[in-house]
Amino acid sequence: MTIAVPTVLTTSRKQVEPALRAAVGELDDHTRRVCEYHFGWVHADGTPDGRTGKALRPALVFLAARAIAEDGPGTVRAAAAVELVHNFSLLHDDLMDDDTSRRHRPTAWTVFGRPAALLAGDALLALGTNVLVDEPIAHTAESVRILSSATGGLIVGQAADLGFEWRHDVGLAECLRMVEGKTAALLGCACALGALTAGGDAATVSRLHAFGRELGMAFQLVDDVLGLWGDPATTGKPVLSDLRARKKTAPVVHALTSGTAAGERLRGLYQDPEPLIGSRAELAADLVRQAGSRDWAETECERRLTAAYAHLHTGGRTGPAVDALTELAEFIVRRQW
Amino acid sequence: MTIAVPTVLTTSRKQVEPALRAAVGELDDHTRRVCEYHFGWVHADGTPDGRTGKALRPALVFLAARAIAEDGPGTVRAAAAVELVHNFSLLHDDLMDDDTSRRHRPTAWTVFGRPAALLAGDALLALGTNVLVDEPIAHTAESVRILSSATGGLIVGQAADLGFEWRHDVGLAECLRMVEGKTAALLGCACALGALTAGGDAATVSRLHAFGRELGMAFQLVDDVLGLWGDPATTGKPVLSDLRARKKTAPVVHALTSGTAAGERLRGLYQDPEPLIGSRAELAADLVRQAGSRDWAETECERRLTAAYAHLHTGGRTGPAVDALTELAEFIVRRQW
Repeated sequence: MTIAVPTVLTTSRKQVEPALRAAVGELDDHTRRVCEYHFGWVHADGTPDGRTGKALRPALVFLAARAIAEDGPGTVRAAAAVELVHNFSLLHDDLMDDDTSRRHRPTAWTVFGRPAALLAGDALLALGTNVLVDEPIAHTAESVRILSSATGGLIVGQAADLGFEWRHDVGLAECLRMVEGKTAALLGCACALGALTAGGDAATVSRLHAFGRELGMAFQLVDDVLGLWGDPATTGKPVLSDLRARKKTAPVVHALTSGTAAGERLRGLYQDPEPLIGSRAELAADLVRQAGSRDWAETECERRLTAAYAHLHTGGRTGPAVDALTELAEFIVRRQW
Repeated sequence: MTIAVPTVLTTSRKQVEPALRAAVGELDDHTRRVCEYHFGWVHADGTPDGRTGKALRPALVFLAARAIAEDGPGTVRAAAAVELVHNFSLLHDDLMDDDTSRRHRPTAWTVFGRPAALLAGDALLALGTNVLVDEPIAHTAESVRILSSATGGLIVGQAADLGFEWRHDVGLAECLRMVEGKTAALLGCACALGALTAGGDAATVSRLHAFGRELGMAFQLVDDVLGLWGDPATTGKPVLSDLRARKKTAPVVHALTSGTAAGERLRGLYQDPEPLIGSRAELAADLVRQAGSRDWAETECERRLTAAYAHLHTGGRTGPAVDALTELAEFIVRRQW
């Protein structure tokens, strides 16, 4: 049996959403509204909206579980926990980065104000732990440990990302460590929790964890490439917003440290206080390409994907869920959003 | 043996601080600096500062543990967890409330900027869970459950507190529920975790939890009274800052709903867009007193203290740690800071 990848994203969303809605439903009215808006379930006025996110992390939890055995109630809770923590980080990142648009809509803080969005993020982080512990399940403490470690990674990654904005000497290695924290840690956590809640032993959980981390690196490299050369109408992000914010994404850092003429011109643009918008932003994106950094990012992405597969297939593991994880990984890397 | 109360605050601080410093030491350099500044360990430039907070919550954890048996490594971690979560809430509350001063110093966000302070708060919340799970201890899942529930209470309480600022119809019952979340939940959690980590059974943990919650209500009522009539040089809070921010503290809400002439005049001041500062703030504080709400707060505080003692002494429990908890409770209620 082969599971078509967009299908697993949709079915995972449907499978996790009741648990997400139940968790968010525990909040006070106002904080709940902010969260429901952020998730795309309602408009700002509280009327239902039919939007859905990518549900990538829940899909990884479910597929990792099925790669071991069967998913069960613990798996659903783990999927909800990972998605809650992911959305905590989105809400707070938007605040820290002053981002005004996400998923084709105004960000929550622009609609509800900064205090309410900050508190909603806190609430989602707290709920992420809470859904893991509010009913006794096997491996609760270990689940919390894995989630807590990923949350720490998110925070360290975001701290590095914030710090990079003011630095002109960011190296590629530390940039990749930032990506490991900010993106790879939670995708690794998703796969590890899936495996753990399906009864996987320590070695299996660790292997799936490593698969998810490598996939997370590939995922972020694709994201960075789409942020520079993707179609904003498809990605839902404002045009060249990473450049406008002078983000030190991996392709940009690769270009800045490439020793090429294009890289040096890019450095000039990044250090110039003039706003990096319009034709200047387009030039910057093209300089990243000229420095060979788009090619580098795409090659590095493939390398990470190969590494991910190596972890996935260790011990000759096969079956429909392993196939589905592979298809999902391919879909992630080939996506246009 | 009797433990002098100020001593237990000092010894608890010393006992918990290595665990706190170790947890904060795991963070990236910048986030660690923000946290170290917030805790009072360093000045803004990173040079050592000798300040210490009240260490009330760690003291409750240790004394609750000793009231059952002995404190051990799990108790130290629980004390650190509670203090980390408390300081998460302080960092974020200062951001949400735009407060510029805490513990006689500029708040962290005014020194390091909003994004860094937001992230430092996130980091402390994540570390709070992490210190409970990073080494296997007995009752880990139950400890996380108790802490997570208190964190949820903090968030619900803060949401109510924020919402109250824009409402003119806040009732006393919902105001007291706000206090239950914002203050009492974590003091209850501290006592419950102390009892749990010392091996207390479910009934004992629940009893200590109830003791801590009632004590928390008394603690906040004292805080509110000190915010209106305390000496800012002693409390470390700017003069009448609660009134300036039109906070709906319990004494204020009691006055507003008292049906007295003073209460109605206070309502006029609270609804008037004119800044509530200087002589207008002093008048507002006096109107709260004239409405009988200072007396009410002091009586309610005593009632909560009596209820706390009833939980503490259920089953005829005695001993030096029970005496010390009683002394600490008395100290909390009689304090001037």
